[in-house]
Amino acid sequence: MLGYNGKILRVDLSSGRMNVEEYGERFYRQYFGGRGFNAYVQMKEVPAKVDPLSPENKLTISLGPLTGIPASGSGRSSVGAKNPLTGGYGEGDVGGFMGAELKHAGFDAIIVEGRADKPVYLWIHDGEFELRDAAALWGQNTLEAQEMIRAELGDNRIRTAMIGPAGENMVRYACVINDLKHAAGRCGMGAVMGSKNLKAIAVRGKGGPELADAKLIGEYARWFGKNFMELAGGMYDLGTSGGVPNLDATGGLPTRNFQTGTFEYFANISGEGMKNTILIDRENCYACVLRCKRVVKVDDPYTVNPLYGGPEYETVGALGSCVGVGDVKAVAKANELCNAYSLDTIATGTVIAFAMECYEKGLLTKADTDGLELRFGNAEAMLAMVEKIARREGIGELMAEGSARAAKQIGRGAEEFAMHVKGQELPMHEPRIKQGLGVGYSVSPTGADHVHNIHDTTMRPGPGMDRLYSWGIQVEPLAFNDIGPEKMTYFTHAVNWASLQNCLGMCIFIPWGQDRIVDLVKATTGWNTNLFELMQVGERMNTLCRAINVRDGFTAKDDTLPKRFFQQIGDPKPTTDPLDPKEWNDAKQFYYAAMGWTPEGVPTRVKLQALGLGWVADELGV
Amino acid sequence: MLGYNGKILRVDLSSGRMNVEEYGERFYRQYFGGRGFNAYVQMKEVPAKVDPLSPENKLTISLGPLTGIPASGSGRSSVGAKNPLTGGYGEGDVGGFMGAELKHAGFDAIIVEGRADKPVYLWIHDGEFELRDAAALWGQNTLEAQEMIRAELGDNRIRTAMIGPAGENMVRYACVINDLKHAAGRCGMGAVMGSKNLKAIAVRGKGGPELADAKLIGEYARWFGKNFMELAGGMYDLGTSGGVPNLDATGGLPTRNFQTGTFEYFANISGEGMKNTILIDRENCYACVLRCKRVVKVDDPYTVNPLYGGPEYETVGALGSCVGVGDVKAVAKANELCNAYSLDTIATGTVIAFAMECYEKGLLTKADTDGLELRFGNAEAMLAMVEKIARREGIGELMAEGSARAAKQIGRGAEEFAMHVKGQELPMHEPRIKQGLGVGYSVSPTGADHVHNIHDTTMRPGPGMDRLYSWGIQVEPLAFNDIGPEKMTYFTHAVNWASLQNCLGMCIFIPWGQDRIVDLVKATTGWNTNLFELMQVGERMNTLCRAINVRDGFTAKDDTLPKRFFQQIGDPKPTTDPLDPKEWNDAKQFYYAAMGWTPEGVPTRVKLQALGLGWVADELGV
Repeated sequence: MLGYNGKILRVDLSSGRMNVEEYGERFYRQYFGGRGFNAYVQMKEVPAKVDPLSPENKLTISLGPLTGIPASGSGRSSVGAKNPLTGGYGEGDVGGFMGAELKHAGFDAIIVEGRADKPVYLWIHDGEFELRDAAALWGQNTLEAQEMIRAELGDNRIRTAMIGPAGENMVRYACVINDLKHAAGRCGMGAVMGSKNLKAIAVRGKGGPELADAKLIGEYARWFGKNFMELAGGMYDLGTSGGVPNLDATGGLPTRNFQTGTFEYFANISGEGMKNTILIDRENCYACVLRCKRVVKVDDPYTVNPLYGGPEYETVGALGSCVGVGDVKAVAKANELCNAYSLDTIATGTVIAFAMECYEKGLLTKADTDGLELRFGNAEAMLAMVEKIARREGIGELMAEGSARAAKQIGRGAEEFAMHVKGQELPMHEPRIKQGLGVGYSVSPTGADHVHNIHDTTMRPGPGMDRLYSWGIQVEPLAFNDIGPEKMTYFTHAVNWASLQNCLGMCIFIPWGQDRIVDLVKATTGWNTNLFELMQVGERMNTLCRAINVRDGFTAKDDTLPKRFFQQIGDPKPTTDPLDPKEWNDAKQFYYAAMGWTPEGVPTRVKLQALGLGWVADELGV
Repeated sequence: MLGYNGKILRVDLSSGRMNVEEYGERFYRQYFGGRGFNAYVQMKEVPAKVDPLSPENKLTISLGPLTGIPASGSGRSSVGAKNPLTGGYGEGDVGGFMGAELKHAGFDAIIVEGRADKPVYLWIHDGEFELRDAAALWGQNTLEAQEMIRAELGDNRIRTAMIGPAGENMVRYACVINDLKHAAGRCGMGAVMGSKNLKAIAVRGKGGPELADAKLIGEYARWFGKNFMELAGGMYDLGTSGGVPNLDATGGLPTRNFQTGTFEYFANISGEGMKNTILIDRENCYACVLRCKRVVKVDDPYTVNPLYGGPEYETVGALGSCVGVGDVKAVAKANELCNAYSLDTIATGTVIAFAMECYEKGLLTKADTDGLELRFGNAEAMLAMVEKIARREGIGELMAEGSARAAKQIGRGAEEFAMHVKGQELPMHEPRIKQGLGVGYSVSPTGADHVHNIHDTTMRPGPGMDRLYSWGIQVEPLAFNDIGPEKMTYFTHAVNWASLQNCLGMCIFIPWGQDRIVDLVKATTGWNTNLFELMQVGERMNTLCRAINVRDGFTAKDDTLPKRFFQQIGDPKPTTDPLDPKEWNDAKQFYYAAMGWTPEGVPTRVKLQALGLGWVADELGV
């Protein structure tokens, strides 16, 4: 099958049984890959309300048709499972090289089920696969474990998807780390790996599927290679943190647990600040010319190993401004620790910020914090917290459960300081400033999420943006704090499009434009597809993820947002009013209706059938 | 504006005032043209429940961006007004040369409002326009009137959109005849012209808008010129009646007022039959290589003037099998009369068939029929009826009102024999055989309609069909009598697509395929559009037409079908069961829901807003 291997590896860790399954072209064309395949497995094979950390949960590593094609942005893959933070749909999405390697090793996805008696890792190479003992790897940080695997198998080019101690300890927001620095960060996928005693997946592949028109893909790739500096040069130069000064200026830089939106040390942690201090190199994902990934080196007062990469925007926000830390070296150290232990930097930072606010407001004392002076801005305390969380030591035991569960246990109003939706911590975008994105946090199937969301900034004119969004919708700049019908129409298309990009295995940072994405899918698969079909794929998968949550008992009431965001931002110079509860609720209801869901947020039978998901309607009983 | 003139001519017949209006690119890109512009005017400018034959009604002649481009299928235009048969949304769509001529004369549409004191015609040439006295033309058949206009203006290449006596007499299904043989047939647009004392629109144009990429359009045109025989050669060879034998064989040839689906004389009236007898030539519409139009000549026992063209499939059905007439010469004569008098051949045949069944069942007698022996198969009686209807003479006065109104007046169960939906007569497709199309009759905004409908046959594999429907939906052959969710999903997309083709001014017979249609729009307008945007245009306009009817008081109860189609077809060899009322209702409800309408068939505010029609939601008060 062009663009696909047509093979999916199923691994039952309980029995050790492994087999290769073939689903056929019609299946692929409906579900495509990425979250499409994750969601299919979660709905079809995983029972409702299953404990995400039980052997009944299933973990999928899913590639899209574009994963591993020789063109920028093709490094993406998606890790899926029921979500230890929310109990509902879960996935962590990731760039790097692992996805391409797995594609070239002959598979489109892996399904991991059951639980191994003792630690194992999965070794896949060019169509072969085996489970291997991981006793010696267990307890190791990701760098050490990767080195051991490469040594054991005698190949230094092996790619790894791995957990460190945080995953082993089932920290609910442990992530899966690919090649030490690419995190499938959200939704606690590392905890699921840990619960299964699966330390790592190691992959080496030199083949892969034929492409329908490799020459054409090469032409597109060369075009982007020639033009990327003009189209997205800022991403190369300053990385994802390039926008920090602008966020600070508009009051949209989450600071001190979202109490304010400006941070006095913003310049230190910005892309420019990093470039002028600790940046030693830029790195790319598979086949990508953009090189938006940072490499940093610090020797004093911390040592930060460049092999662990460098912090991205979400990290400088979460482990910088959000915890009040303006020392970029401390941020880089925290980033390194998270990658070594397999912790989601977003959730880790947001949880620590929560703990800091609790401490400052007197809900936690030194008796609770193992003596840490857990104030905003205390970099040492922040780094100590990362360690404690990864090892579930002292206060780390409580905080490893995530801010929602911790707040419940602390009580006395702590829940007001827990910045989460459905149990998953907020990324570093201020919902009072980017209000469309705030609605997106509320309705995302994974809990607060920034990847499958509207990025209001992209609605503004800019190089490539007319190409990036060429739906023909009359998109004129709409205010960040506009969440009216026109904005929410665009929002609906935007989240479906983001959902599609995930299914395709294509990075949202590459401004191919929608037409060219269609071209890439055609040149890869040979399918005579078009934007109408592809938008339906995005909508189908967004709807399927919703349906999984509905089956798990989620209702419209769970599509919420911390109370804080309906109150004036505590900033010396607020640039907008807070979210208005009625406007926000109207926007949510608009989105449901535009998606063909009921006012309770339940996909209707007809909508499911019209998307080819009649079997899901039966499953839901709608 | 590339592809458009950017000019719309408004003519107020009451005051004689005329002016040119410019709507701007954003308007055009939302409404495109064709039914898009018709519907916009009917919703925006014509009050709810206005009498379609009053001066308050407005008549629009609307072109699409593709109208008049140098490529096959570009001859289409749409005539719109409130519908004298239904009281709701009305339009008649037409090929030929008039649309292209108007485009080349510098306009994208004409709005005609008010009512002239005395007969006038509108003369438009290369941006100029004037109203001229039509006293001498009034009462003339279309041929004579056209000759008089051409002589008066001294140009034999003038194109005309015109009414004959039937339009003048406001026969409710009078049509607009372009150049003697191209009928904007449905919805009584000729009656509206008559009510306004507007005899004709005469046009001559030698300019027209620039095209974004005329060279590329030329390439596409040449490609189709090379390949049309392979893709659609049957349409050239046998015209639209080529499928008659197959329809007869499957029991789908409406016969004797839809009492049966097979006709013993089918071979006579088929494309093959016509070719072997009266066919003397084939003709094309503007820029089209396909030449699906027939030219026939008959000398005995009738004379049929080839200038009036020849009957198409709908005509050989309506004025052939449906009235039981198997003499193709009589059919051709009836066709000529309809074109001379400006009568919709579909409605005329269906009304006469209704009258014949009433006669045979004893509800009408010779006392009612002016002595006519009005039995099925009586060709002379059929021809006499055409004359009487056009002139509203004798029984023609009653029948000129259409079968729904006539049945009401006759009473005694006559309504069971009136084959109409919402007051508009059925085209020649048997809803028990093509059940998806049967549902389409029910829900069409114009009443029973075959143009904006599913054509189940196109779901079957065939040359060009995989290209014609490339939505990526897994379209495998579905049974004609399947109206389940998969079929209705396809149906929903198909009617929206048909709605789009109308907005574009592109003929549905040309198997460009959807991708190439997108290419043609891009090459014409220069807009960076795509199938997603264009499908939304189709959906937007299908929804807007619905909204017009909702405002006029139509409800789901009006989306009906004659009782006959829920009963076994009266055929010696029925090939399917009749429509099942529950299945049919489920299909209707599926369509409403898939369109984002309530179970009462009312577009929701969110759906309207998401389509950029928030102003319509305000208008409807939803």
